[in-house]
Amino acid sequence: MKKKIQVNAALIIIGNEILSGRTQDTNTNALAIWLNTLGVRIKEVRIISDIEEVIVETINTVRKKCNYVFTTGGIGPTHDDITASSISKAFNVKYEIHPKAFKILKNYYKPGEFNKGRQRMAWMPSNARLILNPTSGAPGFTIGNVFCLPGVPSILRSMLGGLKNEIIGGNPIISKTINLRTVESEIAKFLTKVQKKNKEVEIGSYPFFKAGKVGVSIVVRSEDQSKIDVCNLQILEYVKQKKIKKLK
Amino acid sequence: MKKKIQVNAALIIIGNEILSGRTQDTNTNALAIWLNTLGVRIKEVRIISDIEEVIVETINTVRKKCNYVFTTGGIGPTHDDITASSISKAFNVKYEIHPKAFKILKNYYKPGEFNKGRQRMAWMPSNARLILNPTSGAPGFTIGNVFCLPGVPSILRSMLGGLKNEIIGGNPIISKTINLRTVESEIAKFLTKVQKKNKEVEIGSYPFFKAGKVGVSIVVRSEDQSKIDVCNLQILEYVKQKKIKKLK
Repeated sequence: MKKKIQVNAALIIIGNEILSGRTQDTNTNALAIWLNTLGVRIKEVRIISDIEEVIVETINTVRKKCNYVFTTGGIGPTHDDITASSISKAFNVKYEIHPKAFKILKNYYKPGEFNKGRQRMAWMPSNARLILNPTSGAPGFTIGNVFCLPGVPSILRSMLGGLKNEIIGGNPIISKTINLRTVESEIAKFLTKVQKKNKEVEIGSYPFFKAGKVGVSIVVRSEDQSKIDVCNLQILEYVKQKKIKKLK
Repeated sequence: MKKKIQVNAALIIIGNEILSGRTQDTNTNALAIWLNTLGVRIKEVRIISDIEEVIVETINTVRKKCNYVFTTGGIGPTHDDITASSISKAFNVKYEIHPKAFKILKNYYKPGEFNKGRQRMAWMPSNARLILNPTSGAPGFTIGNVFCLPGVPSILRSMLGGLKNEIIGGNPIISKTINLRTVESEIAKFLTKVQKKNKEVEIGSYPFFKAGKVGVSIVVRSEDQSKIDVCNLQILEYVKQKKIKKLK
């Protein structure tokens, strides 16, 4: 039998632009999909504003509760980019120029273009480890179990490849989706029974509307393929018996 | 001079499907835009899983910190819909059939179709007030300062109209966006100065990439139009002086 190792993470999405509705957050989804493939479950996500004390308090709360913490946003060159200084405070370490980050940025820009604003992106918590940025030079950083990534989605995504080996995941989470032409209330009673019989799988039920027709996706998740298979068979048996149409 | 009244809210997005990456959350953005027009600022968003103790704890933490709390998800008919029962626990009130909700649902369905699963949607915290649902019958509910809405985005949006009069907002938050053909690091130093001179406005700087070209949106937010105007003029003066191209 497989040893059970559950590894979890919290995301902290930093940015007034998300809270004001100006920007639709997509980093949560990108990180969720990526972490799932590494066997890391997201326990919670917090979207918070660009306020130092809020960042410090949130970081210090979640980093003790989770194996990993990922932050997005607030590591650019402008006055509202306060993630690196806030995280230094949270860890009670110096906020200073990171020599390697400074060198990377200096090489990235043309001579004379590495101005004060850009130099700001080399300021990090003391002894932070760098997360390389193949898109736009400016690295992210890691301190303790906290990984700080930029807010621009395309840049964030380009940095995940290099980060993969830093994350030690648990057993991968497998999922099986069954799409049915039915409504939730028709299968609710049965699903409750199946969930009770299969306590170690997580069964989710999600209604959908596509091309004017309603349906339900049943998602069965577990770290154990055999448990998913057992649950899946029970559902398919019922679907057949009740003559519910199974969709692709 | 206008009296300053700041009204804030927290959102709690309930659902494993968001945390697993299966579903991209769009309810945060829809609620943020809607609340902004009512003069309500979102202070924080938490995305949490379908676990009773997590829901209870989160609700009880944020409802004391914020004027309003909005939850999305978990009020459907299936076993994983545990928002109503969890919120009853959080408020320490009975979880029971809401007579008016029961009547609405009974009338909504054809005779014989109002089965146990559907009846589950009439179970709510004792004395909850209903939030009417013009799309699919099943009402949301309010208890104290907590408003519980469904997770399906189209249904959620259709319920906001009827909710508007329940929310007493503060001064509306006005914003002005200036789009420039530049990069953040070129204007970072200047923006820091402007922010220092205009402490009561919130200045955000957001890089963008459109049609292969980079640019920066500067967003100035405040409840006071005259303060935005002052700040805006300072930015435009600089932009002219530095010959930065202003975009639409």
